Amino acid sequence: MKFIEKLNAISKKNSSLVCVGLDSDFSRIPQFIKDKYENPIWEFNKRIIDATKDQVAAYKPNFAFYVSQGEMGLAALRKTISHIPAEIPIILDVKVGDIGNTMEMYGKSYFETYEVDAITANPLMGFDVVNALQKFRDKYIFLLILTSNKSNTDFLNDEDELFKKICEKINQWGMDNIGGVVGATNGDEIQQIRNLLPQSVFLIPGIGAQGGDIGNVMKNAVAKNFPGIVINSSRSIIFADSGKDFAEAAREATIKLKGEINKYL
Amino acid sequence: MKFIEKLNAISKKNSSLVCVGLDSDFSRIPQFIKDKYENPIWEFNKRIIDATKDQVAAYKPNFAFYVSQGEMGLAALRKTISHIPAEIPIILDVKVGDIGNTMEMYGKSYFETYEVDAITANPLMGFDVVNALQKFRDKYIFLLILTSNKSNTDFLNDEDELFKKICEKINQWGMDNIGGVVGATNGDEIQQIRNLLPQSVFLIPGIGAQGGDIGNVMKNAVAKNFPGIVINSSRSIIFADSGKDFAEAAREATIKLKGEINKYL
Repeated sequence: MKFIEKLNAISKKNSSLVCVGLDSDFSRIPQFIKDKYENPIWEFNKRIIDATKDQVAAYKPNFAFYVSQGEMGLAALRKTISHIPAEIPIILDVKVGDIGNTMEMYGKSYFETYEVDAITANPLMGFDVVNALQKFRDKYIFLLILTSNKSNTDFLNDEDELFKKICEKINQWGMDNIGGVVGATNGDEIQQIRNLLPQSVFLIPGIGAQGGDIGNVMKNAVAKNFPGIVINSSRSIIFADSGKDFAEAAREATIKLKGEINKYL
Repeated sequence: MKFIEKLNAISKKNSSLVCVGLDSDFSRIPQFIKDKYENPIWEFNKRIIDATKDQVAAYKPNFAFYVSQGEMGLAALRKTISHIPAEIPIILDVKVGDIGNTMEMYGKSYFETYEVDAITANPLMGFDVVNALQKFRDKYIFLLILTSNKSNTDFLNDEDELFKKICEKINQWGMDNIGGVVGATNGDEIQQIRNLLPQSVFLIPGIGAQGGDIGNVMKNAVAKNFPGIVINSSRSIIFADSGKDFAEAAREATIKLKGEINKYL
C-alpha cells in the first residue's frame, strides 16, 4: 500500500493528524525502566506505543536518539518498528542526503533493513538525493523545505528564498512520493509552500517545545483534497511525565494535541 | 590532540594526502571473506587497514554501508574504528544536519559512542547544525560546500551560488574546527572556495570513479600554510581487486594515487 493511502486510512480511523516523535533520549527515560530492563529505550517506546496507538496518525523515531546508544540503540529501533501496528506509518527522521550510490544504500537500509514507510531527507545535493530512491514507489520522502529552527534564515529562508526553489525542483522532478518538512514556527511561508505543492504531504514539526502556532498551520498547510499533513510532537508527549505513569501522561498529551488540532477541521 | 594537528602529523609521516574511503558495500566483499567470517565487513576492513595504514592520511567510513547491515554493520563500524591506529584520523561520512538538541545527540553518537575524529555535516539548516557541536573542540566538522555529484547545480552551484554563502557563514560563525567537502569534479570554484576559507581543511571526494582532476585540485585547493586537504578515494581503492589479493591491490592503488598527488607538491 502506498504511504499516502496508509496515512489517510489511519488518520480517518483514529481521527488524528498527530505524529508522535519518538525522540527517546536515554537520559530522560524514567529510572524504574532503566533499573529493570536490559534495553530501556525499547521498553520505553513499547509502553508509549501501546498507550497512544489508537490516537495517532504516525510515529516518527528520530535516528540520533538510537544511534547514540550504539548497537543497543539500533536494536531498540528495530524492535520499536516491529511493534508499531502495520496500519500506522513510520517516518524515520534521519535527514539523509548524499550521492546516488550512497542514497541507494540508505534506501536499502531504512526501507528494507529497518522497514520504515518514510524517511526525512535533505535536498542540498539536488536530484541525486531522490533519484536513487525512485524504485521505492510505495515509500515516501519528506524533503527539508523550511525547517522549524531559528537558523532556518541562514540559507532556507534568506533573501534568495531557497525554500521556494526546493519546491520548484520537487515539481520538476515529478515524483509523486515526495513531500516536505515544513516547520510550524514559520508564518506566511507555510501557505506559499502549500500553493507551490498542492498534492504533497507535509510533516510539520515545531509545535510544543519550539512554539509553533497550530491555528496558523491548520489555516495554511491543509491540502484541498485530503488533510495532507501530519503534525509532529516529540518531547511534549513522550516526556509529559517522568514518573511511573509516563505512558498514561503521553496518552493524555496526545489526546489533548489531537483535540487542539481537530478544532480547526 | 586537535584534528588538524593529527592530520598534519600523519600526512607528514606517511607523505600522503590520501583518505581511503571505507564504502564497504557488503555485496562487493570477496566471497571467500563472506564464506569464512561472521562479520565480513569487519574482516574486509581490517585487511584493508592493515595493508594501507602506512600510506594514508585518513580513513573515511561511509555510514550508509554500515547501517544497511543493521546492528552487525554498526558492530563492524565500531570494530573498524578501534582497529585504525590512533595516529590516523577517522572521518565518519554521515552528512548529518538537524536542530540543536538532535545535533547534540549526533555529536555524542559519533564523537563519543563511536569515537571518530571528524564527521561530515550538512549546513542546510544553518548555524544550529554546528552550534551544538561547539563543545567538541578537538573534533572537526566537514560541512558540505560544493559536492562532487552532477546535481550539485540544483542548489549549491545554481545562479545564486549557495556554496559561496555557505563559505561566508562559516567565516561569520568563527569556529576554528569547520572545514568543507569540496568535490574534485568542480573547476574554478575550488579556488574561489579556498580564497574564501584560507585556513580550513578540505575533504575532497570525486577523484577516481567520479572523474575529478588531481592537477586542478592540487593547483587550487592546497592551503598556504599546510596542505589543508585530504583527497578521498573509495571504490577505486578498496575494490581494486575482488579476489584473494584484494588487500594487496588496495595497497597498490593507494600508493599509486599517493604518487599521482605528490607529483604536484
